[in-house]
Amino acid sequence: MSEAEVELRGHIIDSLILPRVFAAIYDLDGEFEILDFRIGRTKSEHSYARILIKGRDERHLRVLLKEIQKIGASIVKEVEGVKLMPAPADGVLPDNFYSTTNHPTYILLDGKWVKCENIEMDKVIVVRNGVPVCTPMRKVKKGDLVVLNESGIKVVPPERSRKREVFGFMESDVSPEKPTMSLVKMLANEMYLMKARGEKIVVVAGPAVVHSGASEALAKLIKMGYVSALLSGNALAVHDIESSLYGTSLGMNLETLENYEGGHRHHLMAINEVRKYGSIKRLVEAGVLRKGIMYECIVNQVPFVLAGSIRDDGPLPEVITDVLEAQDAMREHLKEAKLVLMLATMLHSIAVGNMLPSTVKIVCVDINPSAVTKLTDRGTYALGVVSDVGAFLPQLVQELENVERSSRKP
Amino acid sequence: MSEAEVELRGHIIDSLILPRVFAAIYDLDGEFEILDFRIGRTKSEHSYARILIKGRDERHLRVLLKEIQKIGASIVKEVEGVKLMPAPADGVLPDNFYSTTNHPTYILLDGKWVKCENIEMDKVIVVRNGVPVCTPMRKVKKGDLVVLNESGIKVVPPERSRKREVFGFMESDVSPEKPTMSLVKMLANEMYLMKARGEKIVVVAGPAVVHSGASEALAKLIKMGYVSALLSGNALAVHDIESSLYGTSLGMNLETLENYEGGHRHHLMAINEVRKYGSIKRLVEAGVLRKGIMYECIVNQVPFVLAGSIRDDGPLPEVITDVLEAQDAMREHLKEAKLVLMLATMLHSIAVGNMLPSTVKIVCVDINPSAVTKLTDRGTYALGVVSDVGAFLPQLVQELENVERSSRKP
Amino acid sequence: MSEAEVELRGHIIDSLILPRVFAAIYDLDGEFEILDFRIGRTKSEHSYARILIKGRDERHLRVLLKEIQKIGASIVKEVEGVKLMPAPADGVLPDNFYSTTNHPTYILLDGKWVKCENIEMDKVIVVRNGVPVCTPMRKVKKGDLVVLNESGIKVVPPERSRKREVFGFMESDVSPEKPTMSLVKMLANEMYLMKARGEKIVVVAGPAVVHSGASEALAKLIKMGYVSALLSGNALAVHDIESSLYGTSLGMNLETLENYEGGHRHHLMAINEVRKYGSIKRLVEAGVLRKGIMYECIVNQVPFVLAGSIRDDGPLPEVITDVLEAQDAMREHLKEAKLVLMLATMLHSIAVGNMLPSTVKIVCVDINPSAVTKLTDRGTYALGVVSDVGAFLPQLVQELENVERSSRKP
Amino acid sequence: MSEAEVELRGHIIDSLILPRVFAAIYDLDGEFEILDFRIGRTKSEHSYARILIKGRDERHLRVLLKEIQKIGASIVKEVEGVKLMPAPADGVLPDNFYSTTNHPTYILLDGKWVKCENIEMDKVIVVRNGVPVCTPMRKVKKGDLVVLNESGIKVVPPERSRKREVFGFMESDVSPEKPTMSLVKMLANEMYLMKARGEKIVVVAGPAVVHSGASEALAKLIKMGYVSALLSGNALAVHDIESSLYGTSLGMNLETLENYEGGHRHHLMAINEVRKYGSIKRLVEAGVLRKGIMYECIVNQVPFVLAGSIRDDGPLPEVITDVLEAQDAMREHLKEAKLVLMLATMLHSIAVGNMLPSTVKIVCVDINPSAVTKLTDRGTYALGVVSDVGAFLPQLVQELENVERSSRKP
Repeated sequence: MSEAEVELRGHIIDSLILPRVFAAIYDLDGEFEILDFRIGRTKSEHSYARILIKGRDERHLRVLLKEIQKIGASIVKEVEGVKLMPAPADGVLPDNFYSTTNHPTYILLDGKWVKCENIEMDKVIVVRNGVPVCTPMRKVKKGDLVVLNESGIKVVPPERSRKREVFGFMESDVSPEKPTMSLVKMLANEMYLMKARGEKIVVVAGPAVVHSGASEALAKLIKMGYVSALLSGNALAVHDIESSLYGTSLGMNLETLENYEGGHRHHLMAINEVRKYGSIKRLVEAGVLRKGIMYECIVNQVPFVLAGSIRDDGPLPEVITDVLEAQDAMREHLKEAKLVLMLATMLHSIAVGNMLPSTVKIVCVDINPSAVTKLTDRGTYALGVVSDVGAFLPQLVQELENVERSSRKP
Repeated sequence: MSEAEVELRGHIIDSLILPRVFAAIYDLDGEFEILDFRIGRTKSEHSYARILIKGRDERHLRVLLKEIQKIGASIVKEVEGVKLMPAPADGVLPDNFYSTTNHPTYILLDGKWVKCENIEMDKVIVVRNGVPVCTPMRKVKKGDLVVLNESGIKVVPPERSRKREVFGFMESDVSPEKPTMSLVKMLANEMYLMKARGEKIVVVAGPAVVHSGASEALAKLIKMGYVSALLSGNALAVHDIESSLYGTSLGMNLETLENYEGGHRHHLMAINEVRKYGSIKRLVEAGVLRKGIMYECIVNQVPFVLAGSIRDDGPLPEVITDVLEAQDAMREHLKEAKLVLMLATMLHSIAVGNMLPSTVKIVCVDINPSAVTKLTDRGTYALGVVSDVGAFLPQLVQELENVERSSRKP
Repeated sequence: MSEAEVELRGHIIDSLILPRVFAAIYDLDGEFEILDFRIGRTKSEHSYARILIKGRDERHLRVLLKEIQKIGASIVKEVEGVKLMPAPADGVLPDNFYSTTNHPTYILLDGKWVKCENIEMDKVIVVRNGVPVCTPMRKVKKGDLVVLNESGIKVVPPERSRKREVFGFMESDVSPEKPTMSLVKMLANEMYLMKARGEKIVVVAGPAVVHSGASEALAKLIKMGYVSALLSGNALAVHDIESSLYGTSLGMNLETLENYEGGHRHHLMAINEVRKYGSIKRLVEAGVLRKGIMYECIVNQVPFVLAGSIRDDGPLPEVITDVLEAQDAMREHLKEAKLVLMLATMLHSIAVGNMLPSTVKIVCVDINPSAVTKLTDRGTYALGVVSDVGAFLPQLVQELENVERSSRKP
Repeated sequence: MSEAEVELRGHIIDSLILPRVFAAIYDLDGEFEILDFRIGRTKSEHSYARILIKGRDERHLRVLLKEIQKIGASIVKEVEGVKLMPAPADGVLPDNFYSTTNHPTYILLDGKWVKCENIEMDKVIVVRNGVPVCTPMRKVKKGDLVVLNESGIKVVPPERSRKREVFGFMESDVSPEKPTMSLVKMLANEMYLMKARGEKIVVVAGPAVVHSGASEALAKLIKMGYVSALLSGNALAVHDIESSLYGTSLGMNLETLENYEGGHRHHLMAINEVRKYGSIKRLVEAGVLRKGIMYECIVNQVPFVLAGSIRDDGPLPEVITDVLEAQDAMREHLKEAKLVLMLATMLHSIAVGNMLPSTVKIVCVDINPSAVTKLTDRGTYALGVVSDVGAFLPQLVQELENVERSSRKP
């Protein structure tokens, strides 16, 4: 499809210019979109219209433009194809590169709008074999054709669904002043349906899931089959393993809340235990690790990524200590994700949020309103829940059980 | 009992002065307490001891002091009786007035330690008919005998219980990093036992209880008999009544989360409805208000105080718009309270916290860590829970039901 | 002016119906506004237009409507006058009352749009002697004519200024991620100009102004003539007086940060000092209070309101302990205010925010992002600053001095 | 020095046993420390003492013990030397390993207390060539002698200084309720003195330093010579360079606060600019980067570490993407640090906090009270400041200039 913008000015209403333009386009099987339209309020005021004219192809567009120019329209701007420039060196962009949003994006290549693959926020687009692909700057190779910030780019933010649904709430301000249990019910219903449709739910979780006593709930969520992949860091895994092996989190008994004298050692002991066996998997196989989040991941073959952070103790052997490698590993598991559940981790949530197109649904649960705001700011389908994951997650699991139970009834 | 402090300095160990002092007190049936004791590390270093000598009465104390002065002790300070001074005018204190803590406090009147009644933080003590009574400055009358900040005052902070219990956690820093469900279980057990023992639990609640969807849970808590009095403000009552009458909170449907166009009117409509009938009680009697927190208060004859605030809309007829009157009304219901549950309200929680002796247990649940810290700072038995009341309260009620159920089994 | 809505459907473009309607209105000296306009994309699709027709008066409107109905428009809705109903009792509204926004509001009375006086959010409008006045529900008298939620009401939110100014930032999310010093400079310039124009700036301040060490800055702001009225509570005044008399805030020395043993007494001593003299004014006149916020208010005849709260100690004699009286006192000082500076007080800021029309500029400075969000949500001209008032206010005063100094130069 | 614990029970006071024990130790030139001491209140109650006896060496200790055993003391426990066990594999610890605190720690090796080098929290100690060295678990090599959690370990927390100083405030709760400007003045004085004494100040900074408009202040702090090393991440450097090159932060003009259409590209443009030249240093040398934090680091030869994080865009060529390498690089610059200034970054602050012994002074400035609490919890000399770095840092620099100016005066 080829397009061009035209403008009409003056007494275009009562002089019948505008109606004639519309009629001409209708007659020639063209299409149009009104971009701007201001009608003079009084007889003496001029009116103004800016219209996008769409032809089937370049030739058709020429015919349409010729016809309406005769009536009085002036051509403002023809939509031009994308401009490309080769990268001057590995990991270096031409100056006028285009920087992406996280919305579905189309590139006008040879008169055709082609969808860009793997769209992510704040990346660049290179065209390889005629296909536009979104890529981080650092992966651009010398000579790659990089899309410039000039023309031939169309961004299509997802439209809000007309029917009410749980993900329609991003308009409303993030605040703890929302009925938590109603959110839990809505989310449980949505997740139940997604699982039934075979859609992929990815969980991003921080160590507070364990501190706050929700690890049993997350383990159950995995066991119930709601989690396609777990993205996290060293701390969650260590805390979970500590809790499974010794019943403590940083040395505090998670049931009695007693602090063991010197119990902080448990944290390092848990790491040492995994190192001794070589991996979490072998710890499970050896029968030492018998419950918890990581255990359920291993047993149910749910893949996980543990990304390294500058704060890490240990770390566990599974931790990917190079952050760029860790990003790529996360990216791999986010492909095809329909919903990402972000639980009590600002660092990983923002990292993952940066890698997601706006069409993926996000639910971010955090007790810190700032964390929730940062996440929900970036997505059309983002639902922020300012709550305590230690109380929220057990409720979600319980509600999922209710939904499953009631759906099994005849 | 009469007391005096004595000091010993020098080579009191190897010169045998100290052992002789102890022996003399033993021989004369006196008692002592070692207040400070530093022993020289080397032969040439002096040692030092400060000892509180206790006699049965003034006469006995004199005998003890005389004896140990002979051995070499010097009298530092005799514990003197309290000093009193009449208030110069209504609501005005003598300059050197004593300002109270919230700990149990004793006054030495005529050689006897007498417990102060109604102790509260940052108040003053007046002695009326030989009885020390804690009172706000503004209630002091001209001529009242006010306790001065000089002598004869003993403050006894409650000792931490040796056995582990839920209220022993105030040492640990307030943080969301505690296992919420374990706290819920501990609190439910404690509340169950308190109810069984006929002990009084008072609830202080803010409007977020309704926003966050926990009003059904609080209503149930009242119905189950766990609440002796409800202390709150206009907003909670209005939101609750709006929610009961229209299913909304500030116009948002609490189940579907939809915002009604112009739904904010519901808030004023709820107030108008109560005003029309004259009181919440009459709204219940007329069959208009049929559920919710305020409904359960009326039906179960649980008294409530709605204190006015500068933010109030309306207000409801029950609201006490004079804050000093409201303080007094709250005070009345706090007498004999053994536990105060503070739910998502910094303003009222701090107000109530200021009126409580340190011997009353406090549980403060708030999503804002600052609110929780402010409350738990002030009490020996204060437990802070950084959580979402919308998720916490339903869990607490569910757990109380579990405890009741399991205790009914044979 | 009289108005009515008309609708046009069908092939109104190429059939020339729409252009003819416009032409007819032009010819008869009427006016119109296009409320909705959808043009069919293809020849077969219908188009649709909804247009507000405006006549000079009822008679003129009839002529216009008659003419365009002939062309094919159908009348959807005539704009009707306001509906009024007498209040059934003192403080009670008719069921279908209209609840106000904080935007400028007009009532269609006898064919004329009349501006409502004293508009505030969540109040009602009564018509007295032909004049619509916004009033709290509780002040409505039996028989007052209350505006109903039906017709004849027009709300005109203030338009965003086209030129960039400091108050244009409310679109951007509230966050600490704004350059504080740039905000300080913009605000100082704005305040300087307002003062020069004789416009009224009201300050709402919480006790954290004193805790955080900004009381000297606020005192200076008053002295420099930037404050028309100070709205606050008991705590700010007590802390300020404590700080002026003893150099402490709740017993902590504000310069050395040392905590005096028993220094918390200073708080009550400050209250007692005022009570002894009878008022803050007399304390100043007696030469006892010689600096600080309250001192500058007295000396510069800047009125202040101290509203009571349920948390209050004391209180000072000036405190208005009835919250409804306190609201009315605040309201009085807010009349004619052009800018309200809200400093570190959620309670009073929201109370004042509720009393302000949307045309008044608000700057809310608080270290708690939630407090800032709550305030800026409610106003077109609200600027939220997530900052530490203890660092912000001294910078603002310093910047105001810079602006004044540089403007004095020839 | 050799040590042993002895116990005395019974009527040790009036029977003169205790004084004789002390006298014997004095006579034989030994030393002692009283570990526990309870004196019977009445003649019939027993007394109890537990005393640590210290001899110059093993032989001397034997003499002392023999003598006091004669008098009636019973030996409870001799202080044993440290137990060591070889690591079973690289990066794997023996089960009963000792996990460190961040306090100065001594190991009893061959009867001598030897100070452990490079002490950090939650690490282990290995003895190499007779020297105990603190090391992360992952750096332990097979066969390394690891200190076990059994005996011969002494931890000596730094004592609070008796004289008042700015770092004595960690007792008081972290809260925004502290006078910011007084803290600024104290800190400026302390920093001035440290610089004069040639002591090392390390700055840890997050990107909010730039967002909040404090980058000019930090650049000046570096220029003035107060910063020995800068520890940060990719984001700070990119934001700073964006701000220096284009005057924006994430596309927002830091002076006018205008958001440029598409200005978010500036962020990637800044990264691309550095990549084009190969390094920040070359960007400075090429005359492209001419001001800001990174510029001042380069020009003043202040080393910096940019640690990678999972959230990073780009990253810049200087970023160390492996987090373990980054930790080691940071560790290198923290050696000899006397003060670490942590500015608005929870991630890096905690990472650095974990690497510091408790004897290093920490000042943590953050607008988020939780971040400040987490840091100040871990150190004896930690000062938490809940403030807006955008207002705090300019004030600190201004105050440092004042201090320098006034100290230059004759």
